[in-house]
Amino acid sequence: MRLRTLLLCVLPFVAWGQDPPLMPRPRSVVSGTGHLMLVAPLRLVVEGPESERVRRGGVRWKARLADRMRSDLTDTGSAGGTFVYVRFSTIADMRDIRSDGSYTLEVGPGAISIMSATDLGVLHALATLYQALEPYGDGWGFPEMVVHDSPRFIWRGLLVDVCRHFMPREMILRQLDGMELVKMNVLHLHLTEDQGFRIESKEFPELHEQGSEGNYLSQSDIRIIVHEADLRGIRVVPEFDLPGHSASWFVSHPELASAPGPYAVETRFGVFGPTFDPTQEATYTFLDRFLGEMAALFPDPYMHIGGDENNGEQWKADQGIQAYMKTHGLKGPQALQAYFNQRLYVILRTHGKRMIGWDEIGEVPEDGSKVEPLPRDITIQSWRGRDGLVSAARNGHDVVLSNGYYIDLCKSAAEHYLNDPLPDDAPLDADQRTHVLGGEATMWAELVDERNVDGRIWPRTAAIAERLWSPGAVNDVDDMYQRLEKVSAQLDAIGLRHKSGQLEILRIIAGRDEVSALKDLVDVLTPVPGYKRHSLAVHTTSTPLTSIADAAVPDPMTARRVAELIDAIIGGASLSDVSSFRYLLGTAEMSSDDLPCCQDIARVRSALGQRAMEAIDALLTPTSMGPGDCAAFQKALDEAQGPFSECLFADLPAFQRLFEAACTRPR
Amino acid sequence: MRLRTLLLCVLPFVAWGQDPPLMPRPRSVVSGTGHLMLVAPLRLVVEGPESERVRRGGVRWKARLADRMRSDLTDTGSAGGTFVYVRFSTIADMRDIRSDGSYTLEVGPGAISIMSATDLGVLHALATLYQALEPYGDGWGFPEMVVHDSPRFIWRGLLVDVCRHFMPREMILRQLDGMELVKMNVLHLHLTEDQGFRIESKEFPELHEQGSEGNYLSQSDIRIIVHEADLRGIRVVPEFDLPGHSASWFVSHPELASAPGPYAVETRFGVFGPTFDPTQEATYTFLDRFLGEMAALFPDPYMHIGGDENNGEQWKADQGIQAYMKTHGLKGPQALQAYFNQRLYVILRTHGKRMIGWDEIGEVPEDGSKVEPLPRDITIQSWRGRDGLVSAARNGHDVVLSNGYYIDLCKSAAEHYLNDPLPDDAPLDADQRTHVLGGEATMWAELVDERNVDGRIWPRTAAIAERLWSPGAVNDVDDMYQRLEKVSAQLDAIGLRHKSGQLEILRIIAGRDEVSALKDLVDVLTPVPGYKRHSLAVHTTSTPLTSIADAAVPDPMTARRVAELIDAIIGGASLSDVSSFRYLLGTAEMSSDDLPCCQDIARVRSALGQRAMEAIDALLTPTSMGPGDCAAFQKALDEAQGPFSECLFADLPAFQRLFEAACTRPR
Repeated sequence: MRLRTLLLCVLPFVAWGQDPPLMPRPRSVVSGTGHLMLVAPLRLVVEGPESERVRRGGVRWKARLADRMRSDLTDTGSAGGTFVYVRFSTIADMRDIRSDGSYTLEVGPGAISIMSATDLGVLHALATLYQALEPYGDGWGFPEMVVHDSPRFIWRGLLVDVCRHFMPREMILRQLDGMELVKMNVLHLHLTEDQGFRIESKEFPELHEQGSEGNYLSQSDIRIIVHEADLRGIRVVPEFDLPGHSASWFVSHPELASAPGPYAVETRFGVFGPTFDPTQEATYTFLDRFLGEMAALFPDPYMHIGGDENNGEQWKADQGIQAYMKTHGLKGPQALQAYFNQRLYVILRTHGKRMIGWDEIGEVPEDGSKVEPLPRDITIQSWRGRDGLVSAARNGHDVVLSNGYYIDLCKSAAEHYLNDPLPDDAPLDADQRTHVLGGEATMWAELVDERNVDGRIWPRTAAIAERLWSPGAVNDVDDMYQRLEKVSAQLDAIGLRHKSGQLEILRIIAGRDEVSALKDLVDVLTPVPGYKRHSLAVHTTSTPLTSIADAAVPDPMTARRVAELIDAIIGGASLSDVSSFRYLLGTAEMSSDDLPCCQDIARVRSALGQRAMEAIDALLTPTSMGPGDCAAFQKALDEAQGPFSECLFADLPAFQRLFEAACTRPR
Repeated sequence: MRLRTLLLCVLPFVAWGQDPPLMPRPRSVVSGTGHLMLVAPLRLVVEGPESERVRRGGVRWKARLADRMRSDLTDTGSAGGTFVYVRFSTIADMRDIRSDGSYTLEVGPGAISIMSATDLGVLHALATLYQALEPYGDGWGFPEMVVHDSPRFIWRGLLVDVCRHFMPREMILRQLDGMELVKMNVLHLHLTEDQGFRIESKEFPELHEQGSEGNYLSQSDIRIIVHEADLRGIRVVPEFDLPGHSASWFVSHPELASAPGPYAVETRFGVFGPTFDPTQEATYTFLDRFLGEMAALFPDPYMHIGGDENNGEQWKADQGIQAYMKTHGLKGPQALQAYFNQRLYVILRTHGKRMIGWDEIGEVPEDGSKVEPLPRDITIQSWRGRDGLVSAARNGHDVVLSNGYYIDLCKSAAEHYLNDPLPDDAPLDADQRTHVLGGEATMWAELVDERNVDGRIWPRTAAIAERLWSPGAVNDVDDMYQRLEKVSAQLDAIGLRHKSGQLEILRIIAGRDEVSALKDLVDVLTPVPGYKRHSLAVHTTSTPLTSIADAAVPDPMTARRVAELIDAIIGGASLSDVSSFRYLLGTAEMSSDDLPCCQDIARVRSALGQRAMEAIDALLTPTSMGPGDCAAFQKALDEAQGPFSECLFADLPAFQRLFEAACTRPR
């Protein structure tokens, strides 16, 4: 029997609430007492303008419900069935970032009705219904409810870095499915980087030909992505990171760099020197033509110019650039970049685009340089800290929060979830608050490839989606986690690969199909968070991502449950099934020979579990841990600090609390 | 503990041989006694013309080795490492179907060398090396060996039907990876069908726009597929099925059909009436323009015109067509189709293409119709039986065998494996034998979608690949199965989804991640073979493919092992671990509540297992089964006949043999 089954058995207190497990939670749900059984055929009766979004979305929705119900819902001409009455007024224009996504959904005893201003609202209502589908007896149905729903923020984004490791079209298309399910509406594609130029240019084909090793998104791919995104109510914002993070451009165009070259595509990770030369007119001629081509390819009103992490080294080292700066009253790299941004701003305006960039583009040096701040209508994506968001909004810029949503850092869903773009105590006035458009999860791709990337994005990003959609008062972490596991299964069922990808790596590690023992171990591990993995081992673009740390997911559900269980016991709960608990803590199979890859980790886990059981026995009986037992527990805790293969035990703090309860508190 | 683990424990007699588990087996392998450890960096030293195939293939190969070894093999400038010396003379032109794919591979104590005439040989050698990689102690290496290898047949194909269920570009790209691993070299894309027109036409965009519901391969997709195929030494042969199987064309072009219409994309499966009208010149004008467009898109010298299963109904029902036939001395539908094919032949020749089609295009009615047989240079793909192959070859046509390779029929790998295109006793003379080019596995897509299709193709198609590559004398079924399981793991590791897709369906069925009990049950089930599933339930294009029968794979390895074990006991083997065996037979967890989806099947399996254990006890001890016990066993066997949810117990014949041994033979 597998760990997860045991967990379900011994943890009755982790039960679903009465409300349907919707994520994001709607603004208002009034639940009825009954439910509407879904009986085939399922018919959408649509009143409104012809909308490809509704038509294709309806087909997609039906097929997904049928997949889960394992029966055909198609209209075969038979009488009866389940009716969904859909009424909406207008087709949303995705170029209007304020398109209305609100909807009203009623599941009554006889039928379902959806009402919304735009066809986006219809998609949102269908996503809500998909999540509300539950088995009832031998069939499936929806709970009776009235939902009034609308998003809190208009910008609910996911950034996908397709550069550091290339992500093909299919990977992006399936993220769109996931985003639709949790009502996200901005896909931010990070398309150029030191490690790769990942988009086809017809104006300058040498860019992708020499900068990508054949791994790039074609313009045809982009058109498909943009269209499929639009069909799901999702905008696509392209990013061309300038003037730094740009080594891959210079493989074919060294003349645009601030040092002579030659350049190669970077294979390491970090911040590197190659930077555009802002002092040549040729730079702007080139960028005007390139960005013009891209402006025509991407219909979104926004174009992201990056602007982050220019280390200024090439500029400082070049006498010509230094002379130019002197002549133009630019006293440092920051001022020169501000000048560069001014030029880019004009180019983007020429092509009808609004500029968005990372924090740095909103900063102007106060060193007397002759450079103006960018106009107010640029949008700042805040990555470095909350201060950036506040100062940008105070300066009258729109702002999108990414600080706190860096999912590549492998932190907990709870931490991201509680990171509110606009908390009540934000030091902003009412007008300034309107500039906070929302947020974006960022999937930077140093340590993910197509096989494990879904496990870094999902399910945690669903918690971020809820933060950006639901009212700020929806912030109960335990409740979020309970729904998150359901959403995770739904994402799996519609084709996201967070579960499959992990098992694929485990099969490679184990060299066989049977991976339960290995999965039990990985289920309590988490990759070392932050960017510390880079200091533990050398990672380059050719490092295989098939290690334990690549299979382990951040904030694993199993570890969270182990921690809950330990905390319950510390809090005085009794324990009905000691043997299962022993297994959970790691004393059973963990030390077996089933884990040739990871015997050290298994041994440490097993020792920790044994000591924990002793502590639990002491807590549950009127005895105390002796000093020797406590010393042994402390030693096991010390040994369990890790990291092990760039991983930590995700539930270790709970074991620490158990130690404190059993060994340091007076009883 | 999972079933598979148990199997590995209790089945020591299923051990790998001494030879590396290569599939297809090379023409000659002389194994050494030692092995060469693979030490990073891994360097390919290439002597030969610049070949994108070798360069990209080398990168792909290295990354895949690194994935399995879980360590970086990149050249970081350090000394030492493993050297692979590659020498070849010419770049193969894929338009020459007789390009030389032979190679010599030597793994010696100090280095590896590859020698071949063309760069295709290099790819084949790399595939052989990938399969030969094995763990040795703490590292990985290759066994010392000298391999001389060349293919028996020049046409080693896989047909993918992207019509009945659409298969996106990514699905096809990953099949190319699988094909490369087992040295297949023809991808046959079945692009048009009653159920969908799946390729973009720029000449007639209404074809894919109205005939595909948005699910088609764009010309950009095709160019990528053709290029990636070429990089793997694989030709791409497109099929446009004419004149029948063509309802989807007529949605936008009813005027080309033999009856007025209107037409809709077909959602059922079978043989339907809609057929091109061969009596109008407009038909040929249209096809000339369309096939001309396709001829430019697909560089291969062959174009497949289908030609199968025209039921002639529309022709018989149309007075104008009947009158035309009378005027032209065509006495039946077969003669009219022969006339149509003559016209198509000229069109294909005009566009520089050789015609290939199913059996029917080689047949000319002997009813006195005024129609000539097609020229000798057409190629016949034989699907209906061995006779078709023989008569085609005798008529001087090249021929490709598909009869016996219909992988959609869910038959055993052994059956396909033993189906030799050119057995020694084939009634063909030496010249006629040269016309047998090879064979093609056919993945018809009535009952597969993107989630389960890989489980129908792999691993069985690797056995067909061996039949088409290796000498005919390589035909030991047990040996094939032993290697097949290794190849299956390799295919999983390089991205094929036969394992992942099954688990995805099982998670949907179970509604949770823990699916071991369900997998144990599915591992002894096989979808009802042949086309009988269509008589057991209604299947249309909208039937969800998330049932037990969609998760079950043909010829499951576990069932084969259960059968081996039973046969060993019948043959007199003793049994060291009765409890494990009891589990295998289905008496342990099968009946538990872990299987809410499938309690009936589990109960039947459990009863069967109990009776089988009684029989085994009787065989292992000097007792006999009493008449009552035998009657109960017979009853359990009867109940286990199925089908259950469109599945059968794949190991049932072994239980039948056990019954016979225990209850009908004198002891």
